[in-house]
Amino acid sequence: MAGIFQRSLRLRTALRHLSPQSPQSPLSWTVTGRHTPLDLHCSFLPSTSRQFAVCSRKLHTGADRPSPAAAPDRLPFSRITQEDLAFFRKILPGRAVTDPDLLESSNVDWLKSVKGESEFTSFHLKIYFLVVIIFNSSILTSSAGSRGNTGLVGGSVPVYDEIILSTALMNNILTFDSISGILTCQAGCVLENLSLYLEDREYIMPLDLGAKGSCHIGGNVATNAGGLRLLRYGSLRGTVLGLEVVLADGRVLDCLATLRKDNTGYDLKQLFIGSEGTLGVITSVSILCPRKPKSVNVVFLGCETFEQLLKTFQLSRGMLGEILSAFEFLDSECMRLLNTHLKLRNPISDCPFYVVIETSGSDSTHDGEKLHNFLEEAMTSSLVTDGTVATEDSKIKALWSMRERVTEALTHDGFTYKYDISLPVERIYQLVTDMREHLGNRAKSVVGYGHVGDGNLHLNVTSPAKDPALLAAIEPFVYEWTASCNGSISAEHGLGLKKRNYIYYSKPSQAVALMGNIKAMLDPKGILNPYKTLPDDLK
Amino acid sequence: MAGIFQRSLRLRTALRHLSPQSPQSPLSWTVTGRHTPLDLHCSFLPSTSRQFAVCSRKLHTGADRPSPAAAPDRLPFSRITQEDLAFFRKILPGRAVTDPDLLESSNVDWLKSVKGESEFTSFHLKIYFLVVIIFNSSILTSSAGSRGNTGLVGGSVPVYDEIILSTALMNNILTFDSISGILTCQAGCVLENLSLYLEDREYIMPLDLGAKGSCHIGGNVATNAGGLRLLRYGSLRGTVLGLEVVLADGRVLDCLATLRKDNTGYDLKQLFIGSEGTLGVITSVSILCPRKPKSVNVVFLGCETFEQLLKTFQLSRGMLGEILSAFEFLDSECMRLLNTHLKLRNPISDCPFYVVIETSGSDSTHDGEKLHNFLEEAMTSSLVTDGTVATEDSKIKALWSMRERVTEALTHDGFTYKYDISLPVERIYQLVTDMREHLGNRAKSVVGYGHVGDGNLHLNVTSPAKDPALLAAIEPFVYEWTASCNGSISAEHGLGLKKRNYIYYSKPSQAVALMGNIKAMLDPKGILNPYKTLPDDLK
Repeated sequence: MAGIFQRSLRLRTALRHLSPQSPQSPLSWTVTGRHTPLDLHCSFLPSTSRQFAVCSRKLHTGADRPSPAAAPDRLPFSRITQEDLAFFRKILPGRAVTDPDLLESSNVDWLKSVKGESEFTSFHLKIYFLVVIIFNSSILTSSAGSRGNTGLVGGSVPVYDEIILSTALMNNILTFDSISGILTCQAGCVLENLSLYLEDREYIMPLDLGAKGSCHIGGNVATNAGGLRLLRYGSLRGTVLGLEVVLADGRVLDCLATLRKDNTGYDLKQLFIGSEGTLGVITSVSILCPRKPKSVNVVFLGCETFEQLLKTFQLSRGMLGEILSAFEFLDSECMRLLNTHLKLRNPISDCPFYVVIETSGSDSTHDGEKLHNFLEEAMTSSLVTDGTVATEDSKIKALWSMRERVTEALTHDGFTYKYDISLPVERIYQLVTDMREHLGNRAKSVVGYGHVGDGNLHLNVTSPAKDPALLAAIEPFVYEWTASCNGSISAEHGLGLKKRNYIYYSKPSQAVALMGNIKAMLDPKGILNPYKTLPDDLK
Repeated sequence: MAGIFQRSLRLRTALRHLSPQSPQSPLSWTVTGRHTPLDLHCSFLPSTSRQFAVCSRKLHTGADRPSPAAAPDRLPFSRITQEDLAFFRKILPGRAVTDPDLLESSNVDWLKSVKGESEFTSFHLKIYFLVVIIFNSSILTSSAGSRGNTGLVGGSVPVYDEIILSTALMNNILTFDSISGILTCQAGCVLENLSLYLEDREYIMPLDLGAKGSCHIGGNVATNAGGLRLLRYGSLRGTVLGLEVVLADGRVLDCLATLRKDNTGYDLKQLFIGSEGTLGVITSVSILCPRKPKSVNVVFLGCETFEQLLKTFQLSRGMLGEILSAFEFLDSECMRLLNTHLKLRNPISDCPFYVVIETSGSDSTHDGEKLHNFLEEAMTSSLVTDGTVATEDSKIKALWSMRERVTEALTHDGFTYKYDISLPVERIYQLVTDMREHLGNRAKSVVGYGHVGDGNLHLNVTSPAKDPALLAAIEPFVYEWTASCNGSISAEHGLGLKKRNYIYYSKPSQAVALMGNIKAMLDPKGILNPYKTLPDDLK
């Protein structure tokens, strides 16, 4: 306990030294990163004495008309001066980055749909400013060469001239307990690196997603990432056991427990899980990891109708039971894009729907028998028309890529409008069918894929280029449709910049108002990831 | 969505009619219940015009010296007048209960260690006041005949003259989706009734605990109950999908989603899970239920040392893998109490430690084989010295009762000091050994049992009668010991009245201060379950 207080004291001391400005123009921060708000954007509140730094902004939202997805006007934060920058360079030697090439990857999200841009000419205002690291006495460099932000809703890139904070070099594993399977690590650890570390120790991470090679665990937690294993291991709200968070006033909140159960007061860490960096900067994570399964099988199946696909899902839940670890789907349009753009060959005969089922268990003989019985029943009942099974690692990866690379194939098909919808599972494909009919030939492709087991549809619409008329046809149609089924307009991607104003389709105004109260309580000056998550009309 | 707003409007209207007092003396409420804060205690803020109702208080904390577990002075809430009671009776005909016999079960927790008591003579101030029900147009009666509050930290009984709100008659199941396994129900549903309902539909509740026959699901959620299935199905933070909550100002917060994934803004329901009724009154719950396993086995084993017990746990995780659903333990002292007080016979030969392992799976042949292999390995390696297996329901129940009825056996042994500790699993029994040595012959019995799989020890110390000297020897020793291992002083029981002031042993002051901010935000007048969960020194 003493350690906590000492660190907290160090932090406050550091913070006093850190602030290059007078108390009346405090720093305002936003955190973003990879699949996450985990680079910290910083702005200054108005300072009448310093007016010369003017940053204009270009936000490419793909629509000329003002859209609820467009950014609001720049808030009256102060602008960074040369004096500020000199100060940052002094306290962060080699870490205050202004090189435009290095900044590019953090200014633009990987979809290239949202871009923050400064036109300040004497020096570039975007800097990697790793304040948290100083507090922890770690050493950082700029995250040059990072593969960029993997978020899908513009939550992880600056909107105007916010300072970007990267946690990329906070990438240490702190502890791992091989009895309990509890891992603690810093926020900048790449998910895939954690997975590799754990696999050597007969454990796995409880989450897995396509962006694993570049996304950070801190970002995963800040966005409450779902992914491919949620069906089996549950959400991060259950598996994350502790967090260390830097609050907007610079205090370190130590909730980095490594206990499976703890009912001493309110569970504060839950506030930060899924808050997209708007309430605090996650710097460390402790997480409960499952044992590495001894046996993994992947099946790729084809179904004639979505109804048969759902029956196959039900059958798999009954017959595969505790070894079912994923039930994913894609439609024939996805397959066409995989063939066309990525030259991936359909491993089975053509079908309207495809399913990827993964089993993982502790006994390969038992798992094989269960799978065999399930497949026999599914074929006999004519629920599936074709299929292939993989038990070897390379073939497992090949089958998984049919599902995981759909997002990539879409980027080659044109400008993509992405929707991440939660619905009662029996309704999820109806939205794709209805959207296809609704749009007619206005769209290039309308595709559906996602996590059947979680009732989570990824609906994507492409067009040759950005198309405001198409966007107007999609929205609010898609949101109204979703709300009519009591669905969620963001199952796992979050709201970020693009979807913040659509929150009312999924949450009553009272709930949104309470979110505003929480934001005001934790970040009264609104300096953390401004313009994100919460709607503009919130007071 | 329209329904939500209508109901909210109805609520506000109802609330205006409801308040029998002027705005400057608003109602103050606390919710308690069974294993939970789910009866609502109500006090009035000071009203100079009404001074005649004086309620004195006797709080039986078992210690004459002021203890951190003792209640603070009564806060200056108003007292209920005859006019108030007449008003309540008018709007709640037959539901405003003042009969002392009926009130007894809600005034006293089931351990009989905490008692709120009014001595007002002309009528009894404790009334069942089911305000939430009115808003929902349901019909309630007093919960006479309920088996009483099952909480263990005095969180569910009034301290002074708070009004008690019972949700016992809000016991309707609202929806159940047999495809997704998502159940929505009212807060007063008894856990066992929900289990029976689901079992008919091939599902089970994701939690199970000894008090299932009387505890309410709303209380389970309000206290973030753990129980016997957490190892397999995770905590309520992952399985609870939605809540409906009545806030301190009477607004209904509708977060009753039935979606497995929803990342639209902050996850407000998490605030209320585990908040012990101090932030709002949970009125409805939606929860994700697992499939009913087709095969269940229970094994009762004996180990010579706790180290062997831990090795047995590790072995079971590897060899039983995905079918392991519980790993519980009790020591020989527990067995002695079961023999002595409940006449339960040890099903195996005498050992220092006993283990209850449950498997549940989808294939009885596979499960049987896994279990057989595991037991063979455990015997061959001399990890266990004796054991018995049950596959039939009645024998399964009999073996489980050896673990579940320890709490009951303790109540017959004398006055019980109860501690519910989270620790790194390899440390959990050391605390029992150290405590036994520390107390010497001052205690009657010092026993340890609990959830090995969750690192959760139940440490219990008995004495012939309440014994302040013994208590002084136990505390703060037990808390300091726990804090030295970064453990939690309340794994699953919560803090309630008795442990509120010990929170600093498990949480840094910054975290506690933030909890205070949350309380002030949601319940600025402090009317919900006062004197509970948060420490007295909180401003």
